[in-house]
Amino acid sequence: MTMINTAILGATGYTGAELIRLLDQHPVFHIAHLGAHSQAGRLLHEVLPGINDPLASMRLQAADAPLADDIQLVFTALPHTAAATAVAAALAAGKKVIDLSADFRHQSADTYATAYGVTHPHPQLLPQAVYGLCEWHHQAIAHSNLVANPGCYPTSVLLPLIPLLQAGLLDSEQTVIVDAKSGTSGAGRSAKTELLYCEANESIRAYGLPRHRHVWEMEEWAQGIGGQTTHIRFVPHILPMSRGMLSTLHLNGQRTHEWLDLLTQRYASSPFVRVLPTGQLPSTKGVQGSNRCDIGVACLGRNHRGEEEAVIVSCIDNLMKGASGQAVQNANIMFGLEETLALPLHAQWP
Amino acid sequence: MTMINTAILGATGYTGAELIRLLDQHPVFHIAHLGAHSQAGRLLHEVLPGINDPLASMRLQAADAPLADDIQLVFTALPHTAAATAVAAALAAGKKVIDLSADFRHQSADTYATAYGVTHPHPQLLPQAVYGLCEWHHQAIAHSNLVANPGCYPTSVLLPLIPLLQAGLLDSEQTVIVDAKSGTSGAGRSAKTELLYCEANESIRAYGLPRHRHVWEMEEWAQGIGGQTTHIRFVPHILPMSRGMLSTLHLNGQRTHEWLDLLTQRYASSPFVRVLPTGQLPSTKGVQGSNRCDIGVACLGRNHRGEEEAVIVSCIDNLMKGASGQAVQNANIMFGLEETLALPLHAQWP
Amino acid sequence: MTMINTAILGATGYTGAELIRLLDQHPVFHIAHLGAHSQAGRLLHEVLPGINDPLASMRLQAADAPLADDIQLVFTALPHTAAATAVAAALAAGKKVIDLSADFRHQSADTYATAYGVTHPHPQLLPQAVYGLCEWHHQAIAHSNLVANPGCYPTSVLLPLIPLLQAGLLDSEQTVIVDAKSGTSGAGRSAKTELLYCEANESIRAYGLPRHRHVWEMEEWAQGIGGQTTHIRFVPHILPMSRGMLSTLHLNGQRTHEWLDLLTQRYASSPFVRVLPTGQLPSTKGVQGSNRCDIGVACLGRNHRGEEEAVIVSCIDNLMKGASGQAVQNANIMFGLEETLALPLHAQWP
Amino acid sequence: MTMINTAILGATGYTGAELIRLLDQHPVFHIAHLGAHSQAGRLLHEVLPGINDPLASMRLQAADAPLADDIQLVFTALPHTAAATAVAAALAAGKKVIDLSADFRHQSADTYATAYGVTHPHPQLLPQAVYGLCEWHHQAIAHSNLVANPGCYPTSVLLPLIPLLQAGLLDSEQTVIVDAKSGTSGAGRSAKTELLYCEANESIRAYGLPRHRHVWEMEEWAQGIGGQTTHIRFVPHILPMSRGMLSTLHLNGQRTHEWLDLLTQRYASSPFVRVLPTGQLPSTKGVQGSNRCDIGVACLGRNHRGEEEAVIVSCIDNLMKGASGQAVQNANIMFGLEETLALPLHAQWP
Repeated sequence: MTMINTAILGATGYTGAELIRLLDQHPVFHIAHLGAHSQAGRLLHEVLPGINDPLASMRLQAADAPLADDIQLVFTALPHTAAATAVAAALAAGKKVIDLSADFRHQSADTYATAYGVTHPHPQLLPQAVYGLCEWHHQAIAHSNLVANPGCYPTSVLLPLIPLLQAGLLDSEQTVIVDAKSGTSGAGRSAKTELLYCEANESIRAYGLPRHRHVWEMEEWAQGIGGQTTHIRFVPHILPMSRGMLSTLHLNGQRTHEWLDLLTQRYASSPFVRVLPTGQLPSTKGVQGSNRCDIGVACLGRNHRGEEEAVIVSCIDNLMKGASGQAVQNANIMFGLEETLALPLHAQWP
Repeated sequence: MTMINTAILGATGYTGAELIRLLDQHPVFHIAHLGAHSQAGRLLHEVLPGINDPLASMRLQAADAPLADDIQLVFTALPHTAAATAVAAALAAGKKVIDLSADFRHQSADTYATAYGVTHPHPQLLPQAVYGLCEWHHQAIAHSNLVANPGCYPTSVLLPLIPLLQAGLLDSEQTVIVDAKSGTSGAGRSAKTELLYCEANESIRAYGLPRHRHVWEMEEWAQGIGGQTTHIRFVPHILPMSRGMLSTLHLNGQRTHEWLDLLTQRYASSPFVRVLPTGQLPSTKGVQGSNRCDIGVACLGRNHRGEEEAVIVSCIDNLMKGASGQAVQNANIMFGLEETLALPLHAQWP
Repeated sequence: MTMINTAILGATGYTGAELIRLLDQHPVFHIAHLGAHSQAGRLLHEVLPGINDPLASMRLQAADAPLADDIQLVFTALPHTAAATAVAAALAAGKKVIDLSADFRHQSADTYATAYGVTHPHPQLLPQAVYGLCEWHHQAIAHSNLVANPGCYPTSVLLPLIPLLQAGLLDSEQTVIVDAKSGTSGAGRSAKTELLYCEANESIRAYGLPRHRHVWEMEEWAQGIGGQTTHIRFVPHILPMSRGMLSTLHLNGQRTHEWLDLLTQRYASSPFVRVLPTGQLPSTKGVQGSNRCDIGVACLGRNHRGEEEAVIVSCIDNLMKGASGQAVQNANIMFGLEETLALPLHAQWP
Repeated sequence: MTMINTAILGATGYTGAELIRLLDQHPVFHIAHLGAHSQAGRLLHEVLPGINDPLASMRLQAADAPLADDIQLVFTALPHTAAATAVAAALAAGKKVIDLSADFRHQSADTYATAYGVTHPHPQLLPQAVYGLCEWHHQAIAHSNLVANPGCYPTSVLLPLIPLLQAGLLDSEQTVIVDAKSGTSGAGRSAKTELLYCEANESIRAYGLPRHRHVWEMEEWAQGIGGQTTHIRFVPHILPMSRGMLSTLHLNGQRTHEWLDLLTQRYASSPFVRVLPTGQLPSTKGVQGSNRCDIGVACLGRNHRGEEEAVIVSCIDNLMKGASGQAVQNANIMFGLEETLALPLHAQWP
């Protein structure tokens, strides 16, 4: 098969590193260009010692360096707003783009401005962006030139939530409470005291209150795909592990004992979503290194007001299904390839 | 000052080990007897390599070995039901007892039977037990012969909750959602595959659903001390750190902007409860190795139903304020000593 | 290409789990049979939650269950002596075998008996076994029916040592001091107190003294391949990480400043050995999840006796190049496939 | 007893934080002044969230702020050369000083210049400095105004080595090989990418080659106290744990089977050195949070040249006996107090 040349902009952060690892094992995509912000000019192995030759000897280009004509696909793993600028340039040059930043996840520039506190640099591009939650936007992704790769928290929350919303099984008046826990790689690779080993090790803390940026994204697509206005109260925590994300959804609804079957059926043909058998709950270790989302349901019975209560636990690897894995899944779909190509189905254990 | 001889039964688990460490540095309490279940007959250092001589050379007695007459205080850190048996024997021998098991935390043998699935071996002792949440039962503890040391999860939840309940600031109809996270030492020291380093490392998972045993304890004392019937939905998680516990309380109520002041005032004279300034949330690292409970409040504003929402985060070291530290605090109170004696106020950092 | 059916015996330990993960992504080898000791009869996902369907629903067979006729290759990841029995049966049934135990790593049953303290159950098979250090026995492996997969420590030590021995650059009278550090998965998956998260976390210790079993293997093949009698003093340590192995070799020799070039040239065509540039030393993170061995050399100059001193640091992932990765590499060679098939060249970062 | 006022300069690094924790529990020393480099002007709890009030509300002074007249003792935990300047000022103001930097560990300004690559700012003070290895310089410390607190690596190496050197039991011609492993706190609290949780977690690496600064200190005092010229080859490693240090000494000598007895006798009256029984080796967990050094000896027998070989493993908590704990021990000695005052004898487990 003819190889498809790709570029990765923002190659030296954790999502960039993961893209490199996945794409270099991919039978169709070829890494032809690596761009970086602050590390431009250095050789890749100086910044990412885990990469082997010949890739290790590639030189990092500036983030705005011109892209060769034969590059067909660009992954942008840059900070928000910087990503939008790179996306606009790549689209103008006729490339397809998968953007791992938040810049194209919202349909409206106003929501983006509210969530991120900045004016969108290229609002005219928003209408052509497809929200790349693969299990729900497969067709649109296949016909798109610009895919907005979902956030890690929204991915872990929307996958279990959407089927329930579509089936009308959640109390519409409730506030959906999401208590989420992320490994430290979710905070990025910048050198901050609070992210030092000795500060993060043996510690867990909440952050991002009163309203984390990802809440807008969750609510927008719970409505946009689930078809029902949803109010989410979200508390993320950071904990001492490198990668992994677990979201605990505290829910009220109807016929909670049918939820497991509903989810199982809905995702029966989705290779990367696994709904666990009755009585089992997932762990982040069970998905570590894989592109899977594992989902478990626990029914709690009726509370004192007569409402049925349930807890759903959803686990992903934040750098895989939560970022770079889903980006490659999107790329596979976009180019008409087998959706699972070069994407691990099994976790690394231990 | 005359030393007070004490015994520790169940000396080789994690709470027993922590009791040994704390009591050996105590200016008044003296460790005169160490009892153990399966390790009886061995020398202490064979089981706990971190203990120094001369204590390291003490021989572990059987859990039911007779206690010398001059022993005034017994700490029982045994499994439930085994603890009750040891407690009954110690009381009969005229000792004071602080029980770290769940056996005397409930006022009714029926609740105990429901929560633990066994018949209480000594229900006649329940009326004389005092629930040892030091900040709320100080007087009763001082006059008691039997203190039931609170569970780790209930301690972290009740301390922030009680003042709000007493002030009538929580919506009485709500289900209080508690999403809790515990270090692995909370699961004890028994050799199970799921607790192996390679299985627990780099992993988080929920457990204890649909209803963890500690919920009965939380609800009983939220009512018993807080004075208001409280419905709690509780989801505990285990995460890759040795010690530490963080409970996230998702709450609806009135005048949430006053909560921080209320808590600050209520605990102004409690040396082991620290209410953080506005805008700060605690971490488990901030309390690791100390006997403190750190509490932070985040006000989220009004939701779509007009209710005020808030999140409270509460952190303890599960082996200190969550177990052995609070046990020593109880012992200090019971014997009329300074409450803070031999109890660290500061965390080990890092 | 026609698939080659394989069996994995001892599928539920850490090396078995890693074999499953690697082989299920392999374009040629197909997992047709899973055998296990104590877990026989269970479904795979009950024991290894990280494995996805359809493999997850395979039932584990007894370790001595008969193998179907169309199985061509058997991986034995069983305890020593149990492995030899399974190997003998598989060979008798006409299968090729790659044995991950220690049973066929020694050329003499006497050495085996000395190192392992048991009589070899099938000494008659020793002559046909090939020691599967891929970079040195490629031809023999390709023509063998029985490959003894090397130990993790010997792999990390022999790869840097052999070229220096062959070139006669090491002082022949010295004792080569190897100070090695292994992640906890090297101790296996059995439930022992000392391997609990809370015991292994935040701790490092030495073990295996005075003479670890792997020393015989190192010395035998340093002589057997390196061509020079070698005396090794070996101290292994276990440290708080799941996987990864670093061996530090303290050496005296001649022309130490040429060692880096020699190693670089010797391994120039070995895809899984990377010799780092001058001034760089490897980390286990740089090889985690990959099948690579990374090697760095530091020249220390002449000591007070006029001898040249150098330190070599060698890193592997103990479950990959140290066990299951090298086993798959051996299988690739054995069946005339591309050596790198289905084997990661890059580390997972982070 | 009258309290002794103390100052800590460099209060916000890890050794400063540990000094605060230890001194605030001390019955005699009182923390009257906290100085800091970059954090001057902030309140302590903003930088160290684990410290409780009232200490938490102390404001950090500039490192060169004047010290009140009633301050009798100054701990300097500043970077080298900055420390010397602060020491000179404190001595001039009539204070006693315990310096945790390297500035006064060497007897000669030339050695210091060679090891640290800078000219000593105050060489005239070197003659009055006492090397504060408590177990060997007790008398001199008691009469000194300036104690140079030993480095962490030298402490762990010299304690087991000195008795053997004094007894003439080591082959004098050998190179003593020390392979050491340190927790990440040893690298300090500055925000560097390589010290981020995600980079340091699940990784071990060697550093500091060809010759780490601490080698000069080890060799100087092996000679200075042990009385024999000693050649040390030293390779330190950093590993994924917050605190703890293990040094493995690879040795040749005479009568190795007597070493354990010799060490046991020599340290019988040293409360902070524990020599383990035959057959036992220490772990860093066994000393974590304590001020102990645990030492184990393994005799390996005679090698092919007829020399007796042995391995000694020595463990300390790098922030306790390796830094702040030994500093408080020195302070206790300096002021004629009980040597163990406020210093933990037992490890935190887990």
